Amino acid sequence: MPVKLTAPAANALLPVPGVQLGFAQAHVRKPNRKDVLVITLPVGARVAGVFTQNRFCAAPVVLCKTFLAENAGIRALLVNTGCANAGTGELGLNLAQQTCDALASLLNIRANQVLPFSTGVILEPLPADKVIAGLPAAIANLQEDNWLNAAEAIMTTDIVAKGTSRQILLDGKTVTITGISKGSGMIHPNMATMLGYIATDAAVSQSALENIIHFAVNKSFNCITVDGDTSTNDSLIVMATNLAGNAELCEGCPEFALLREAITDVAIELAQAIVRDGEGATKFMTVTVEGGKSEQECRKVAYAIAHSPLIKTAFFASDPNLGRILAAIGYAGIDDLDVNTLQLYLGDILVAENGGRAASYLEEQGAAVMQESDILVRVVLNRGSENITIWTCDFSYDYVKINADYRS
Amino acid sequence: MPVKLTAPAANALLPVPGVQLGFAQAHVRKPNRKDVLVITLPVGARVAGVFTQNRFCAAPVVLCKTFLAENAGIRALLVNTGCANAGTGELGLNLAQQTCDALASLLNIRANQVLPFSTGVILEPLPADKVIAGLPAAIANLQEDNWLNAAEAIMTTDIVAKGTSRQILLDGKTVTITGISKGSGMIHPNMATMLGYIATDAAVSQSALENIIHFAVNKSFNCITVDGDTSTNDSLIVMATNLAGNAELCEGCPEFALLREAITDVAIELAQAIVRDGEGATKFMTVTVEGGKSEQECRKVAYAIAHSPLIKTAFFASDPNLGRILAAIGYAGIDDLDVNTLQLYLGDILVAENGGRAASYLEEQGAAVMQESDILVRVVLNRGSENITIWTCDFSYDYVKINADYRS
Repeated sequence: MPVKLTAPAANALLPVPGVQLGFAQAHVRKPNRKDVLVITLPVGARVAGVFTQNRFCAAPVVLCKTFLAENAGIRALLVNTGCANAGTGELGLNLAQQTCDALASLLNIRANQVLPFSTGVILEPLPADKVIAGLPAAIANLQEDNWLNAAEAIMTTDIVAKGTSRQILLDGKTVTITGISKGSGMIHPNMATMLGYIATDAAVSQSALENIIHFAVNKSFNCITVDGDTSTNDSLIVMATNLAGNAELCEGCPEFALLREAITDVAIELAQAIVRDGEGATKFMTVTVEGGKSEQECRKVAYAIAHSPLIKTAFFASDPNLGRILAAIGYAGIDDLDVNTLQLYLGDILVAENGGRAASYLEEQGAAVMQESDILVRVVLNRGSENITIWTCDFSYDYVKINADYRS
Repeated sequence: MPVKLTAPAANALLPVPGVQLGFAQAHVRKPNRKDVLVITLPVGARVAGVFTQNRFCAAPVVLCKTFLAENAGIRALLVNTGCANAGTGELGLNLAQQTCDALASLLNIRANQVLPFSTGVILEPLPADKVIAGLPAAIANLQEDNWLNAAEAIMTTDIVAKGTSRQILLDGKTVTITGISKGSGMIHPNMATMLGYIATDAAVSQSALENIIHFAVNKSFNCITVDGDTSTNDSLIVMATNLAGNAELCEGCPEFALLREAITDVAIELAQAIVRDGEGATKFMTVTVEGGKSEQECRKVAYAIAHSPLIKTAFFASDPNLGRILAAIGYAGIDDLDVNTLQLYLGDILVAENGGRAASYLEEQGAAVMQESDILVRVVLNRGSENITIWTCDFSYDYVKINADYRS
């Protein structure tokens, strides 16, 4: 079950002026579930995206990158679940293009104004005919107050729909930011989560929006892992409709940081929600590595901990078998690491220093922290001033069950 | 349950002239199990070792490296299970030294002629008094025909004792090679498995023995993974007693390759046995990556596949969800990989080519191969002439169970 995560109330996801969302049950893979989502944007909206670095990136990712580069003015997004359209070669590109053509025709826009997204099983051809057959129903229910339905329409093994909103004042105008995401397994984004969509009505320049998306993704979706598998389909899109009435923000503008912080905050909440709803998760772990020589070496240590099946199963068992964390620090790949000068904390408890167990550490203390559902693992390297924080979850029977049964 | 692996018959492990083995039940962690092993070597024996690259390497590993460098002529090995004596700082070194002192005193040799080894829980102090109290019993039952008992004495979460023997003719003399190993979890050796011991009575020079151990470990223990966790205690020792009567082998000698091949063959069998007895294993997978520009890039792809929890759980489920393998190839870290020119095979079945599913591939074919307990995953990169083969196992409910319960 998700760790301290519930679906947002429908009225908690605030409409973003200019952004309409419509869904359909198109039976892409399974009946009786929302599996197609259409998002429309007004003329003049700005869109930025970051995508998976997996070399086997999916056909829709290839098209998204192409269409964004063509800069034709994105007017719609089309998402399907049930099939990832990845590992599908030339045929996959053709099928994704067909869905864009169909939506463009129905909306009276051009195909390269439609960004396509798919998530689901890899290596199977996209049933484009089913997606296309679902489009009229999705278009028929397009409305601004449809974010929760949209969050539900993009779920796969997710248990809980994920979304959040913020409002800030820019230039005296109220600006809304609403985002949704999906993802539960194959989560180790190296650009973005499987799918994330954040919209705002703020007026913001294209280069400022690009700045924001890269800043936000590095603080959020690039700091989570469930199982260390980088998906073929990871995509994060940030959209700005320019309808809030504020003066257009540029990177040097006084209020730029306000918008960037608010969007980053939304991105972090959406990214953490993916971990809290990680496949089979029973614990949410924050791994902080401080005092490194570089952010990169902090990241190595943090991910060595976050990816270790031995550590993740110990957390599942609430067993303070903390030597496994020392082992992971030791094999993280810092060649000149001095194990005698680092400290390991579990929550506030000093567990290890001087190369071994801290004299003050009592097993009962570790056991007490391990009972909690939100746990902080903190490593202080004492060799520099860089640090990083990432989020992950434990490894349970249900992870195996979910992934052994996923296609059935 | 181990995958096609049974313990060797006692008479299948051939004595190696000059190598005596004795064991004791010392109650290091649990009662009523062999947990201390002493191996003695004759004067003039040559010993070479390779050890974990984990920066948190255990106290006994530190002493082993020191004593081997001091070159005092190793005469005994002392192994305990139940406690890894890792993450134990200065105290751990002192306790390991105490056990060496005690055995040296009982055998009338010097402490730096004793190599110590520990395996078990990390971050807890070694109960050196218990190990020392067990030494007289172990010495009392020292004999050459004790290899199976020795293999049993070094087991932790292993289900099956692991050992094998070979005999070859060198210089007209029959030479015996016998090896044992242990290991089941925290297996991703970056030097050797958790513990492996191979002995021969061949006469071989020290530099030839060093050559052999590095050659053998790169073809065997460095090609396996269970869970991607590199242990703090990995150690492989090769011992040569020089009693077979053959003329001493040097690296340039005509028969050098014969001995190296035979020892490598033993090392591969011992390493594969660790995977077959991997924690919770139900499938044994051989992952071969061919046609890479470098061995290193082949290794990246092979380990991306072998470490993926999504792939390992799909194999557990016998589910040919092979898109997960494409995803792993895609995120393995080859930046200029062209996914359109590689092929993926499952056994003899061509699964993917031209960036997607092969036209000839039928799901029934993949499903049939997945039912087997020994499965070959073969990736042909078609961009060079290097290749690599590694071995791994699947990821089951029992892996979680074993590691959630390990200390209880």
